[in-house]
Amino acid sequence: MLKTPYLLFLGDVPDPLAAKVANGIKDWRPDLSVGQYRMDGCKADLGLTDMTISQAKAAGAQTLVIGAANRGGVISKEWVAVMLEAIEAGMDVASGLHDLLREVPELVEAAERHGVRLIDVRIPTVDYPIANGVPRKGRRCLAVGTDCSVGKMYTALAMEKVMRERGMNASFRATGQTGILITGEGVPLDAVIADFMAGSIEWLTPDNDEDHWDLIEGQGSLFHASYSGVTLALIHGGQPDALVLCHEPTRAHMRGLPGYKLPSLDALRDLAVQMARMVNPDVKVIGISVNTAGMSEAEARAYLAKVEAEMGLPAIDPFRDGADRLVDALA
Amino acid sequence: MLKTPYLLFLGDVPDPLAAKVANGIKDWRPDLSVGQYRMDGCKADLGLTDMTISQAKAAGAQTLVIGAANRGGVISKEWVAVMLEAIEAGMDVASGLHDLLREVPELVEAAERHGVRLIDVRIPTVDYPIANGVPRKGRRCLAVGTDCSVGKMYTALAMEKVMRERGMNASFRATGQTGILITGEGVPLDAVIADFMAGSIEWLTPDNDEDHWDLIEGQGSLFHASYSGVTLALIHGGQPDALVLCHEPTRAHMRGLPGYKLPSLDALRDLAVQMARMVNPDVKVIGISVNTAGMSEAEARAYLAKVEAEMGLPAIDPFRDGADRLVDALA
Repeated sequence: MLKTPYLLFLGDVPDPLAAKVANGIKDWRPDLSVGQYRMDGCKADLGLTDMTISQAKAAGAQTLVIGAANRGGVISKEWVAVMLEAIEAGMDVASGLHDLLREVPELVEAAERHGVRLIDVRIPTVDYPIANGVPRKGRRCLAVGTDCSVGKMYTALAMEKVMRERGMNASFRATGQTGILITGEGVPLDAVIADFMAGSIEWLTPDNDEDHWDLIEGQGSLFHASYSGVTLALIHGGQPDALVLCHEPTRAHMRGLPGYKLPSLDALRDLAVQMARMVNPDVKVIGISVNTAGMSEAEARAYLAKVEAEMGLPAIDPFRDGADRLVDALA
Repeated sequence: MLKTPYLLFLGDVPDPLAAKVANGIKDWRPDLSVGQYRMDGCKADLGLTDMTISQAKAAGAQTLVIGAANRGGVISKEWVAVMLEAIEAGMDVASGLHDLLREVPELVEAAERHGVRLIDVRIPTVDYPIANGVPRKGRRCLAVGTDCSVGKMYTALAMEKVMRERGMNASFRATGQTGILITGEGVPLDAVIADFMAGSIEWLTPDNDEDHWDLIEGQGSLFHASYSGVTLALIHGGQPDALVLCHEPTRAHMRGLPGYKLPSLDALRDLAVQMARMVNPDVKVIGISVNTAGMSEAEARAYLAKVEAEMGLPAIDPFRDGADRLVDALA
């Protein structure tokens, strides 16, 4: 679990997209960050206060969160210098980078000397149990997709936001690096050992208040040859009461798999429900979340209306519309 | 990959069942072992020649294979003493025990000194790729089960035996500890990192001769809440042309999951075919393998005849009948 508040490190990224992790934290957890740290040449700007390490420390920052992607797969000397300064100021450093902080000897040595943590959120730190399939108290909603990267995390976060605004008892449950950095905790499911995948999700979404909803971040797709096993473990470990179907209508093929067509929303609904019923006979599909970023407003409206009529379920784009109608459908 | 031939270590096991790994090696790869090593009090006997370490070394043994389960989860001093003797004689030591050889400092130190390997087959040693879903040459058969431990490994090994006797081009592909020790290679799928599960199976069953069959060892069950994700990765990574349905008819509930009923063979067929079609549209179910160990001969015959009539597929118990009819059905 990450200590808050954060200082968001944007580095020297060449464009705003490379800072999407930081952007996610600012959008979904605006209260968690005291400011941003930008290096010379940084082309991203979250609109937060620019701070030096010592200014951030004075403002209470406890963790330097690497909110940007690094170039070329190597953590540069310039980045390491900033991290060392944060460590010397007594801050933890947290990262979801593929290149691990723990593999940079200078950082390891400095962190030990100053008694702070290097947190690579890609690497599990918990010994997860084997799933036992026992029904749990409280309620769970899971986003499942026709493909990878179709907006499952965004949908769950948007639902959580609406629910909190309405005073409902709800928690986003992160299962990927970005989600973990946004919320400060979670399970890096793609890095969990096969036998413990479903168990890690049971651990993540334990017994809770009867009126509490876990909004579980989806991963992969039952139809994606590379990652389908991860998705099924999420369904069987999550025991969802509610499913949201997520889709991106402009894809020519499954992500990373030329030659593999996306399934229809009907096919996703039928298969996801069949799988979820094995662990929760009362599961229901409550709505559809479409990423219409590749469409004009008029195209998006027409597409959503068509899907809604065909499927008989609320169909929204949470980015354009918010997630109110999905939350309405939970009740 | 393990170096052969083996000396099979039975330790001081209290009953034959505790030596089932050694028994599997003797049954399925009788040519691989020069003899057996038994300690005082050992209640298992494979009928192989009893040998000391030096006798086995003289007979050419290259690997001491731990073919027995240890008691209480600790590798005893007495076992370590035998392993040290084998290491000093220049033999590798291979084990599928939950307790790792590499965590016994004396063994590590001795193996380094003598230039031999400690091989814990539970731990992957390969950096597997992410699955790419590209169709591969050659043919593949996968055993899928209504539950865990219903005879999937046994079925695949029995099919391979028949195919080799008939001069067919076939390879058993191990995906679990016992299978790896039996054949000397494979993927310990339950210990693979989530993102690489399907890729590890693509790696295990690469392009091959057009007339070659991989007989892939199944794991878990699509219906088993704890391990279903592993099974789906195996189906999507394996791209099976042929599926064999495996079942054990006397189970009161899914293994380890009280309250979860086993699915019907119909349900298994429909779901496994649906999943396998995503990666191989031509997949076919070719037969049914039933573990009837809990039935009398008359009960078994009646049950198999009933299943065969209901499902319209050959239904056999490979232990009672051999796997000839499944191999016939492959053609």
